[in-house]
Amino acid sequence: MPDCIFCKIVSGQVPCTQVYEDEACLAFLDIGPISPGHTLLIPKKHYEAVMEMSAAEAAALFKPAAALAAAVKTALKADGINVLQNNGASAGQVVPHLHIHLIPRWPGDGLGFRWPAKQADMTVLARQAEAIRANLKGK
Amino acid sequence: MPDCIFCKIVSGQVPCTQVYEDEACLAFLDIGPISPGHTLLIPKKHYEAVMEMSAAEAAALFKPAAALAAAVKTALKADGINVLQNNGASAGQVVPHLHIHLIPRWPGDGLGFRWPAKQADMTVLARQAEAIRANLKGK
Repeated sequence: MPDCIFCKIVSGQVPCTQVYEDEACLAFLDIGPISPGHTLLIPKKHYEAVMEMSAAEAAALFKPAAALAAAVKTALKADGINVLQNNGASAGQVVPHLHIHLIPRWPGDGLGFRWPAKQADMTVLARQAEAIRANLKGK
Repeated sequence: MPDCIFCKIVSGQVPCTQVYEDEACLAFLDIGPISPGHTLLIPKKHYEAVMEMSAAEAAALFKPAAALAAAVKTALKADGINVLQNNGASAGQVVPHLHIHLIPRWPGDGLGFRWPAKQADMTVLARQAEAIRANLKGK
């Protein structure tokens, strides 16, 4: 993608503070971190959302996430870590090149996902699950 | 794990509203949803955090995430979707069996991750990256 900032990082046109690279992915520190050590893991190929990926591509992207999360957590002496991937502006996505946020966490840091959990209506869940399974068929 | 609610779901001792299953994973609707269609994808084997997984195990867990996210988003007619995986109580993890949240999103739904981004000090980033790379060596 010509105007994509992350494609430019992949091609070397724009610098980054790299922490990891393999055939399919690149990981670097976010220049607008929400916590110290905030890292981004991206596919080298341009996708906007995870829904555009095949199962094999998703597997290749998330394959290094476990070791990366461990390395980031240890290096920053963090207490916990979030793995977050936002798809769509309404989900908080700003750069339209798929990216996974690794966000180191500490008790009382004030971060985290807003969590207004409700008790589910089991009849509604059954209907939703049926619709999801129907959309998964043949995939 | 004898007292793990998600291990009991995997073994069939506790019911769930299932949407997907393969050799390595199970996906079902969260009974305490934060948005309609809130789905959990879990490994059948008990892990507490993603950092405990090998690269191959992480790949197997996230492999169905792309198709699942697509199916959940389409079935719920959502605008966007978050893929979120919390490691540690300070990161918002409540059930200590690794799980990935698929959270359908709509504009103005009031959800999302708190995002107090700061501009990074590039000297600090370089030092953090060095520590992360050192912790990744041989992995």
